[in-house]
Amino acid sequence: MDLGDGTALLTDRYELTMLQAALRSGTADRRAVFEVFARSLPAGRRYGVVAGTGRLLDAIERFRFEPDQLEFLTSNGIVDEPTAQWLEKYRFTGDVWGYSEGDCYFPESPILVVEGTFAEAVLLETLALSILNHDCAIASAASRMVQAAQDRPLIEMGSRRAHERAAVASARAAYISGFATTSNLEAGRVYGVPTAGTSAHSFTLLHDSERHAFASQLAALGESTTLLVDTYDVERAVRTAVELAGPSLGAVRIDSGDLGVMARRVRGQLDSLGAHDTRIVVTGDLDEFGIAALTAAPVDGYGVGTALVTGSGAPTASLVYKLVARSDGPTADAPMRPVAKRSTGKPSRGGRKTAVRRVDGHGTAYAESISVGEAAPGRRDRVLLVPLVRDGEIVGREPLAATRERHARCVAELPPTALQLSKGQPALPTEFVDG
Amino acid sequence: MDLGDGTALLTDRYELTMLQAALRSGTADRRAVFEVFARSLPAGRRYGVVAGTGRLLDAIERFRFEPDQLEFLTSNGIVDEPTAQWLEKYRFTGDVWGYSEGDCYFPESPILVVEGTFAEAVLLETLALSILNHDCAIASAASRMVQAAQDRPLIEMGSRRAHERAAVASARAAYISGFATTSNLEAGRVYGVPTAGTSAHSFTLLHDSERHAFASQLAALGESTTLLVDTYDVERAVRTAVELAGPSLGAVRIDSGDLGVMARRVRGQLDSLGAHDTRIVVTGDLDEFGIAALTAAPVDGYGVGTALVTGSGAPTASLVYKLVARSDGPTADAPMRPVAKRSTGKPSRGGRKTAVRRVDGHGTAYAESISVGEAAPGRRDRVLLVPLVRDGEIVGREPLAATRERHARCVAELPPTALQLSKGQPALPTEFVDG
Repeated sequence: MDLGDGTALLTDRYELTMLQAALRSGTADRRAVFEVFARSLPAGRRYGVVAGTGRLLDAIERFRFEPDQLEFLTSNGIVDEPTAQWLEKYRFTGDVWGYSEGDCYFPESPILVVEGTFAEAVLLETLALSILNHDCAIASAASRMVQAAQDRPLIEMGSRRAHERAAVASARAAYISGFATTSNLEAGRVYGVPTAGTSAHSFTLLHDSERHAFASQLAALGESTTLLVDTYDVERAVRTAVELAGPSLGAVRIDSGDLGVMARRVRGQLDSLGAHDTRIVVTGDLDEFGIAALTAAPVDGYGVGTALVTGSGAPTASLVYKLVARSDGPTADAPMRPVAKRSTGKPSRGGRKTAVRRVDGHGTAYAESISVGEAAPGRRDRVLLVPLVRDGEIVGREPLAATRERHARCVAELPPTALQLSKGQPALPTEFVDG
Repeated sequence: MDLGDGTALLTDRYELTMLQAALRSGTADRRAVFEVFARSLPAGRRYGVVAGTGRLLDAIERFRFEPDQLEFLTSNGIVDEPTAQWLEKYRFTGDVWGYSEGDCYFPESPILVVEGTFAEAVLLETLALSILNHDCAIASAASRMVQAAQDRPLIEMGSRRAHERAAVASARAAYISGFATTSNLEAGRVYGVPTAGTSAHSFTLLHDSERHAFASQLAALGESTTLLVDTYDVERAVRTAVELAGPSLGAVRIDSGDLGVMARRVRGQLDSLGAHDTRIVVTGDLDEFGIAALTAAPVDGYGVGTALVTGSGAPTASLVYKLVARSDGPTADAPMRPVAKRSTGKPSRGGRKTAVRRVDGHGTAYAESISVGEAAPGRRDRVLLVPLVRDGEIVGREPLAATRERHARCVAELPPTALQLSKGQPALPTEFVDG
């Protein structure tokens, strides 16, 4: 089953039927501005984290309709021949602006702005939303966990609980938000995320005894490895571990039971055996609240799986891709007209937006300020939209390390309320000003 | 960024470090049986749906360590040279048994059984769990929606809210559970799932007027198309739609407001305009409960997005992959020994399982019966484990249509309580019998 590298069919059918109808009615070449934003944050969350931008740029570059894809579309009557010919030549030639990857966002923040003809810009809707909705959801959950863990390192280990490709993207998103490592090897290979992992219970069960298993692991991976100590009896396992590895054993991992109680007992035991530098890593259905509850426990690192890859209760970021302005005709000088849906329940605001984060004299942000049209930024305002694609050329690529550093800076800029795990209002109010 | 087709690095690092240690200690070739099961269903759910099996078989076939992957593993010190040489030759040569795709499962059902050497079987853990945890979660949610919709067709349209590749798998899983169509084109191309889609609000906003937009769509897609009628004023839109298309207009779609109230109003209006055969499709944050609440409304089809791709509150199936038996040595005649973790909180049951669904004289299932070892099935028992891979050869492939038919049969076999949407106990008790 060849899944291929192309991204063009990772698209909802209605994008192509709209294209076909617009080509026919002569509106396909109207200039259009689409914006990606969330009407609200997941219930009670204080901020969102922009992630997926780098993946989206890669995906836009690979957004081409290949012959077998076109054959599928025409032979199934999904598009007609003129539309297929248009798709065959498709390259995105417009502009994309966006919040920098790793930055924070708030309700209505225009985290992506796509400008081009309607035809070329509408085609990117599904792919842009898929990538951003997933990666922002994971990064937003991850950031809370990182804050809860304070300076203790977090290992992302959720691959087994997520779609196999989503797992790779999750590892990348978690790293942006400050996770130290991932269990996912493909995230290591493709994105350079540091990887971690030593052994599961099956390894202990495979051997004739726990002692046999520990000795095997130490022989293969050295004393700095992490031994999993809760297959049978934790106290006996810790004793065996230190007996075999000596006090320079790297770490022990506890994956079950009351992790706080167990960590204290194990710390005491390790210290009594002289293994003062042996670290304690805890895993097992941890989320940001479980991590925070262990603040006073002698824990040196956390592994997080399910809660991370499922967005800790918010598995999608609810971002939408909305047409906010269009011209009346195809020429570049035709005036742009703000447009917006007017139906009940899901109003949206017409017009191309710009956005700044307002920051006070102490460097603390106090508002997300969005204007329709160009508003001159104030002296301390941080301008949020940066160029990502210009005339179809990717211009916004950056190393993953830069996004990770940015995220740490942007969270530090928020008021302290942003770091509360309890449910509440967004940490910054969103204000609309006239441009 | 080349993501490639290979699946071998969609794997947690610890699988490879365990392999390396086992190769070194001489335990790598011990015979091993791993089982995939869920300790429980998501809170309140009555049954789970097995999905992903076909994708897993494809992924096992493509599970090869390519030179660039091996180079990544060795140059980053993840495995040593002997392990890399072993990986280079890796092909899974063992056996896999599983519940048939589309069948239902219950707590502790052994939905996948992997038999081989420890080394070859442990490597598949991450990939098997990623695929099954995702696809079972989506199919399980989808099945409840299909039951809630009774005979009305469901459109899967969640791609924009899910990771771009998970979206394709979600469309496939939803189809197994009885969804009629998907918006996702790649799911159409790769898996043959029927696709659907016509237009979004942006299409209406692109045009000079709603009338202009509808006329464009009808010209391009014909009168059987679905017109989206809630961009401005629904009543006016419906009038315009029938004026332009005549009474043979295919359908109208309502995406906002109180869908039940709106559907009744629109039905009345369509009928008064003579458009008795024009169908009404509703979309907008529907889940199984929202669908059920519209049972009495004149609705002809539902579109479901977010709730479907996020598993409607249960985005992962919590399946685990556990070593349940192993031999003491590598030879085929070495006796197998049941093994199980004994720590608190997450007990598991050692020994290779078989499973049957007990069915009464009326064809209604009444128990999920699991035995350790071989138990002779009773006359009416339905044997649940079928061969999927034999000596490394894929033998369990089947058309997607077969899994969809099986699912309908297997749900029909369950007692009526299975179809209750309210929270409750699993529809069948899981019983353990001695083999």
